[in-house]
Amino acid sequence: MPDHELCVDHSRLESVYGPLAGSIRRLIDVSIRSEADPATVAAAKSQIDRAADELSGALRPGSFGVRRTPDGQNIAWGNVVVGLRNPVAPPLVIHHEPDGLVWSEFVLGAAYEGPAEHVHGGVCALILDHVLGATAHRPGRPAYTGTLTLRYRRRTPLGRPLRAQAHVERTEGAKTFAVGSLGDEHGVTVEAEGIFIHPKQPLE
Amino acid sequence: MPDHELCVDHSRLESVYGPLAGSIRRLIDVSIRSEADPATVAAAKSQIDRAADELSGALRPGSFGVRRTPDGQNIAWGNVVVGLRNPVAPPLVIHHEPDGLVWSEFVLGAAYEGPAEHVHGGVCALILDHVLGATAHRPGRPAYTGTLTLRYRRRTPLGRPLRAQAHVERTEGAKTFAVGSLGDEHGVTVEAEGIFIHPKQPLE
Repeated sequence: MPDHELCVDHSRLESVYGPLAGSIRRLIDVSIRSEADPATVAAAKSQIDRAADELSGALRPGSFGVRRTPDGQNIAWGNVVVGLRNPVAPPLVIHHEPDGLVWSEFVLGAAYEGPAEHVHGGVCALILDHVLGATAHRPGRPAYTGTLTLRYRRRTPLGRPLRAQAHVERTEGAKTFAVGSLGDEHGVTVEAEGIFIHPKQPLE
Repeated sequence: MPDHELCVDHSRLESVYGPLAGSIRRLIDVSIRSEADPATVAAAKSQIDRAADELSGALRPGSFGVRRTPDGQNIAWGNVVVGLRNPVAPPLVIHHEPDGLVWSEFVLGAAYEGPAEHVHGGVCALILDHVLGATAHRPGRPAYTGTLTLRYRRRTPLGRPLRAQAHVERTEGAKTFAVGSLGDEHGVTVEAEGIFIHPKQPLE
């Protein structure tokens, strides 16, 4: 990582790029639900293209990656589940309780649809993979999914408060066995269990 | 569904909304990778907000849903994996071979990141859920995920050609047992098996 990366003031960048991602999240949502006439859509498209052109003036190749701040914090702003700068991420805020419980509460909108008016089963899997994996993550020591099993009890609604949670069932050497669930106000919609592995050498 | 929905010319709408979603996909990608200065980012954000305001002039509540055309085709343009109008969707084009094999080839960019420079394990799950599920789908008769198990062999790269494929192993009444995998040019990265269920009554 080049030296200047280490000197970047991430709090300042957060206040620049966080609102940008927020605006694009709203744009994604309304673009799916819009019933505007073709001329309005074409005008909006032109504005979006100009904004993308301007942002492309200075562009990092590849992806955002995972960057380390001077104080040793990992910044994963490009992450598709929690990334501050990733408009695809809801983004989830992950809470770690002292007893090891990991949880997140959120609402998923039109962008996450599978069956009509319901969350895509694969999005439930995406979120549960991340939340179960978070039970095994340690600062500077990520864990990777080994296996993940999902049991769908019923469909998960769009536009309503949801909660995902997970805890460690047991650990065996580099393996963490985690269990968890996704649910709404009426109870569990999807159950999950997974094995997460700490590589011997950090992989980044 | 109101009558006017049935009269909508979907090919015409496709040529209006398809390019809009394409532009927003590019915007998502460059917004994550941009290193533009704060003033440029603020100007881009204003344009994006204006575009979102214009598209919001006529807005369907909720989500896109699944709409049926006059000729009985289902339109799932809001779908997070294959939706023409969903900028979060890559979107995947799903191919059905006469022998029942279902496959899709695609490249995933910065918006799908988990570990640095690699696809989030949960995005692999999202795609495999959809592709395995597609082996069970019949026109007007969707199948829902019952269980899904994923085995991660190695990490899946961003920015490289990927292929997902699946086939039916067997069926038992309303249940379809499907298996499949995701991989790159070096072979399989994630294996999956799932049970997909046809509800007795259509759920939409």
